[in-house]
Amino acid sequence: MTSAGGPVGAGSRAEVLRRVREALGGARGPRPPVPRRYARRLTDAEAGTRADVLALFTERVADNRAAVRHVSADELGTAVAAALWGREARQIVVPADLPFGWLAELDGVRALADAPAVDIGTLAAVDAAVTGCAVAVAQTGTIVLDGGRAQGRRALTLVPGYHLCVVHADQIVGTVPEAVERLDPARPLTWISGPSATHGIEMVRVEGVHGPRHLEVLVVED
Amino acid sequence: MTSAGGPVGAGSRAEVLRRVREALGGARGPRPPVPRRYARRLTDAEAGTRADVLALFTERVADNRAAVRHVSADELGTAVAAALWGREARQIVVPADLPFGWLAELDGVRALADAPAVDIGTLAAVDAAVTGCAVAVAQTGTIVLDGGRAQGRRALTLVPGYHLCVVHADQIVGTVPEAVERLDPARPLTWISGPSATHGIEMVRVEGVHGPRHLEVLVVED
Repeated sequence: MTSAGGPVGAGSRAEVLRRVREALGGARGPRPPVPRRYARRLTDAEAGTRADVLALFTERVADNRAAVRHVSADELGTAVAAALWGREARQIVVPADLPFGWLAELDGVRALADAPAVDIGTLAAVDAAVTGCAVAVAQTGTIVLDGGRAQGRRALTLVPGYHLCVVHADQIVGTVPEAVERLDPARPLTWISGPSATHGIEMVRVEGVHGPRHLEVLVVED
Repeated sequence: MTSAGGPVGAGSRAEVLRRVREALGGARGPRPPVPRRYARRLTDAEAGTRADVLALFTERVADNRAAVRHVSADELGTAVAAALWGREARQIVVPADLPFGWLAELDGVRALADAPAVDIGTLAAVDAAVTGCAVAVAQTGTIVLDGGRAQGRRALTLVPGYHLCVVHADQIVGTVPEAVERLDPARPLTWISGPSATHGIEMVRVEGVHGPRHLEVLVVED
């Protein structure tokens, strides 16, 4: 964001925040009650059991035009390798704290750890990014990244054209409110519902403009 | 452990524990005070600053006949690779949750993730194990593993002949009491003060009998 005089600096930001706080006045007091009559949990008709929740997530991820596969923890290394081979990936980038086991079966694929941070040119040139996630939502087939463990910085999953995301079954909740309960609003959250797509120009769907064109999800059932 | 009639089963164990609990009687009541007049912190003369604590740890690890090197977080991948090349390691084993970045610079070294668990023959045949640790003690040059993140099961660091251990500077405390404060007594703890050595027969020092013959420590200063 820029102003006429150049980029908005720390001083301007502080001033804006000061005015917001001033306008809010008593915002530091007790918060007024928020009506929460919206659906906060899945109904039994939607998903009565954990297996139903996982099945719903799988269905909705597929509806979002992402590929999705279920694997056991022991199969994960092989499944990651197979997914990358399937896309003929030669070079990938991963968060430095990605568990080694996820990449243990790679053969003929070069993985770059993003520490020190790879430059943007390299990021644009790699074939894929592999990450974990913070939480996933069955009802919407959404995956949320918060920059925590095995997720890396935002650019990692927004620049490469293919994002392979590992979701552990216990990270999948039913609804968006349940996901929000698990998340820290102070962290940088990326909500991913299928591959990147926009209808911004003439209502024509164009994929891969603001993020990966291809999203693949591996659900690990432990 | 075996008894005359075969292995001690769950039934015998429960019976032994029952008798111990019975004998302890009021052990579930408030605990009697434990005198703690021993030294619980390093004195200023031993280490006045954090830098002194790290220097003391380094000195004591070296006294324990282990190799020790300080690296920055950005250098860690290269340092791990260099240490393994230095020992001509061709095949290593690591916990499946070891951060990928630690192994990102390996070239010509095959890393096996211990998930599913590698068999004991393979474990005996690999050239090295690479792990993290739970906490480390400056005063004694000791590293403690608790089976938590990046540490794996016990056999992983007891069977291979060479253990390369990554210690983050913030994991180093001054004294054993400080280490105990950070540890969970219910976890399987392995206390490592240098390479494995025994004087059990004729007081002759023999290395590598009960664990790795070689220990190398990389201290990561973030």
